[in-house]
Amino acid sequence: MQRSIRTFYEAVKIMQHLPREGIPVIRYINVKSRTRTEFIDITEKVQELLKEAGLVSGIGYLYVPHTTAAVTINEGADPSVQRDILTLLNRMIPFEGDYLHKEGNSSAHIKASLIGPSLSVMIDEGRLVLGTWQSVFFCEFDGPRHRRVAVKFLSDKKMP
Amino acid sequence: MQRSIRTFYEAVKIMQHLPREGIPVIRYINVKSRTRTEFIDITEKVQELLKEAGLVSGIGYLYVPHTTAAVTINEGADPSVQRDILTLLNRMIPFEGDYLHKEGNSSAHIKASLIGPSLSVMIDEGRLVLGTWQSVFFCEFDGPRHRRVAVKFLSDKKMP
Amino acid sequence: MQRSIRTFYEAVKIMQHLPREGIPVIRYINVKSRTRTEFIDITEKVQELLKEAGLVSGIGYLYVPHTTAAVTINEGADPSVQRDILTLLNRMIPFEGDYLHKEGNSSAHIKASLIGPSLSVMIDEGRLVLGTWQSVFFCEFDGPRHRRVAVKFLSDKKMP
Repeated sequence: MQRSIRTFYEAVKIMQHLPREGIPVIRYINVKSRTRTEFIDITEKVQELLKEAGLVSGIGYLYVPHTTAAVTINEGADPSVQRDILTLLNRMIPFEGDYLHKEGNSSAHIKASLIGPSLSVMIDEGRLVLGTWQSVFFCEFDGPRHRRVAVKFLSDKKMP
Repeated sequence: MQRSIRTFYEAVKIMQHLPREGIPVIRYINVKSRTRTEFIDITEKVQELLKEAGLVSGIGYLYVPHTTAAVTINEGADPSVQRDILTLLNRMIPFEGDYLHKEGNSSAHIKASLIGPSLSVMIDEGRLVLGTWQSVFFCEFDGPRHRRVAVKFLSDKKMP
Repeated sequence: MQRSIRTFYEAVKIMQHLPREGIPVIRYINVKSRTRTEFIDITEKVQELLKEAGLVSGIGYLYVPHTTAAVTINEGADPSVQRDILTLLNRMIPFEGDYLHKEGNSSAHIKASLIGPSLSVMIDEGRLVLGTWQSVFFCEFDGPRHRRVAVKFLSDKKMP
């Protein structure tokens, strides 16, 4: 049976009837921070996991299972941007202060909640959909440590 | 074959067996900011894209592919709220300072990571599930510029 | 027909062909805050909703439909961490100031956008995938009030 697609959104509505597939697997990226506060670019590692999974279109979820670290997206071209973000955060939220928590890392816990532990990124044509200047960063606020970032993909397209 | 549904959660478990459909399309909302820092209400534009897609139930993803802008949800009724948020952010994170990045917009990069580039909103009965006072805002931190916001929907229900 | 699975990623690619199911239901957790700014641990309540839904693997979405509250993930073991986060936020973003919004809660609106209204958490083996020290917190910034948190799950696996 032939069907003419008259509009863009009619095409979308047809595609909506394609079944979606999930990938019931959580992958982890291992990260080793080398100083107290640090941004580590993990864009290529996320992209590699996506390629291995063979996903074409959908959503990628990034999650940091730590309480003194976070994940963000910002400029990757000039490392000065990362340093300016950290410098300002360390000034706004000082390492030392009248904190109640006895482990000496309250500053890191506060930064972790401000930047946040989770991000969603769109996927199209097998690639993360990032802006021209965007990179994905693991944010260390209480290093140096061994850390990890959880990555999971949901597909909205049948694999070819 | 008739089936009696005894509990709410039995009903949920039956619904879980309905296939879901994805919408392998990313849409973009174009935004034109007119000043250096500014909130622009995009709630109705997101709602229009949702209506065009014909989605009934699922999740909507919003993503800003820029490194000096963000997306947030806050009060839309009184514009003073938006101005108070921007005033406080501009005071906490000054435009001028001992920044290393030479483009003069480090303040905007910092704000972008604090507010964040991605948001997820639930969809029910073909509408974004927002609180009474909530609106979706594009946050300009380095305007004026032409910008865009990526929007993608995942459905969890068969279309009627 | 027998099939040998030679690699991990071949197994993943097979699993990708399993249909996913959505749960077209939004659940709500009711929260009663007792003071002006407060973190309330809702981890067990989210976990209970997940168990009732019978979900095995997927993503859980948390959403606060209020403009003076938020949701975050941070350390649950030592309550001093929650107090340190609130103390620092209340100092950075004072309750009183030259705010334009006349309701006297601009500080709460600002905090709500900084911490954020939405979070995504991975689900595996019927459990939220949280780090050892992580708990999910509703963040009250303008209490005491009756509040609620919306919870929705997307599954990526057929139920057994």
